[in-house]
Amino acid sequence: MAELSRTSGVPAATIKWYLRIGLLHAGTATAPNQALYDSSHVHRLRLVRALLDIAGLSVADTQQLVAVMDDPEASLPDVLAAAHAATSRGPTAPTPADALVDTYLHTRGWIVADDAPARRDLAAVLTAMQALTRLGDEDPTPATDTDQAVAALLDPYAEAVQPLAEAEVHGLRPVTSREAIVERVVLGTLLMEQALGALRRLAQEHAFNQVTERARHPR
Amino acid sequence: MAELSRTSGVPAATIKWYLRIGLLHAGTATAPNQALYDSSHVHRLRLVRALLDIAGLSVADTQQLVAVMDDPEASLPDVLAAAHAATSRGPTAPTPADALVDTYLHTRGWIVADDAPARRDLAAVLTAMQALTRLGDEDPTPATDTDQAVAALLDPYAEAVQPLAEAEVHGLRPVTSREAIVERVVLGTLLMEQALGALRRLAQEHAFNQVTERARHPR
Repeated sequence: MAELSRTSGVPAATIKWYLRIGLLHAGTATAPNQALYDSSHVHRLRLVRALLDIAGLSVADTQQLVAVMDDPEASLPDVLAAAHAATSRGPTAPTPADALVDTYLHTRGWIVADDAPARRDLAAVLTAMQALTRLGDEDPTPATDTDQAVAALLDPYAEAVQPLAEAEVHGLRPVTSREAIVERVVLGTLLMEQALGALRRLAQEHAFNQVTERARHPR
Repeated sequence: MAELSRTSGVPAATIKWYLRIGLLHAGTATAPNQALYDSSHVHRLRLVRALLDIAGLSVADTQQLVAVMDDPEASLPDVLAAAHAATSRGPTAPTPADALVDTYLHTRGWIVADDAPARRDLAAVLTAMQALTRLGDEDPTPATDTDQAVAALLDPYAEAVQPLAEAEVHGLRPVTSREAIVERVVLGTLLMEQALGALRRLAQEHAFNQVTERARHPR
């Protein structure tokens, strides 16, 4: 246990808690107060920490996701759905913006389950944008209460992610074992979503700097 | 107060707390226990709720961001930096992966401040990917401990967001007042990052369904 804590960088008390709540599989008992842990334990601890600290999942969502990852009966679409559910913050009750999302996905020709949690996440953003643009004398953002306005707002984002998602899914093929491909789906979905967000912010700053630079030195 | 709560959908106790911690500006006092609130209060409440519930900011990060938004001396790059700082989860101490991020940004030619928080967010993802790919006999994800491996991993994401960020920054021009453009920067950065993530997940599911469909009905 002390060695597992040292190798993984996770405090022993935290490891014991993860063992109790099923986030970590038990070691092989060698004595009443001793167990043997191997590289699979170190690996799982790193995965759990990445999901909590970097992907920002709650402990409960991490438990549910890890259970699906460990279930040999779960298919890859099941794992992808579990990863998406874990990171979703959207409301669980239907909202008026759901219809806007339905229409948008239909127009784009994207085939997505009716209960995909990302639908609700997108609807929540549209609802907030609506609420924030209806009030006030100046219009700070485009309105989002018609299908045309939604398409104008979302198209640049959808066009950025569509080829990316296709490349991601096609890139999955060379991997062999279930365990390896399952982990790749989860990391590719949740960790790389954080990378995507960070890269967009870096690209925004760069684009801002370019505009400022051009304003300072006009041709 | 009762009417403000009803219009905004935010409980009165929460509104009182927001007033105390500076997330909401005071109303015009009309009597010892009464104040007049206007549409600016409703709007601010909606903004605060969107930052907390949809962008997932902490109360402390929302306070700091709102303070910069309200500061007439803050420039647009200041507001963008504050929005980026608010959403950053990255470690504050330097990590070995920082050098990989430096090299990657240099290779792409992106001009970004040395202390941009998104650098740390990206470094944190690379560190986790490294830790998760070094162990185990099978290689679930590409290694990320060389500049070439980092470029291979990040390029598809960077290429997806670069034209998007340029379009976003150039799209800012038509807006007029400082207040309107500041809000557009914040919503465009933080709420649309959630939309981007949700759209990527929807596109992933669609791409997955396409592959499955093709496997089921081969040409």
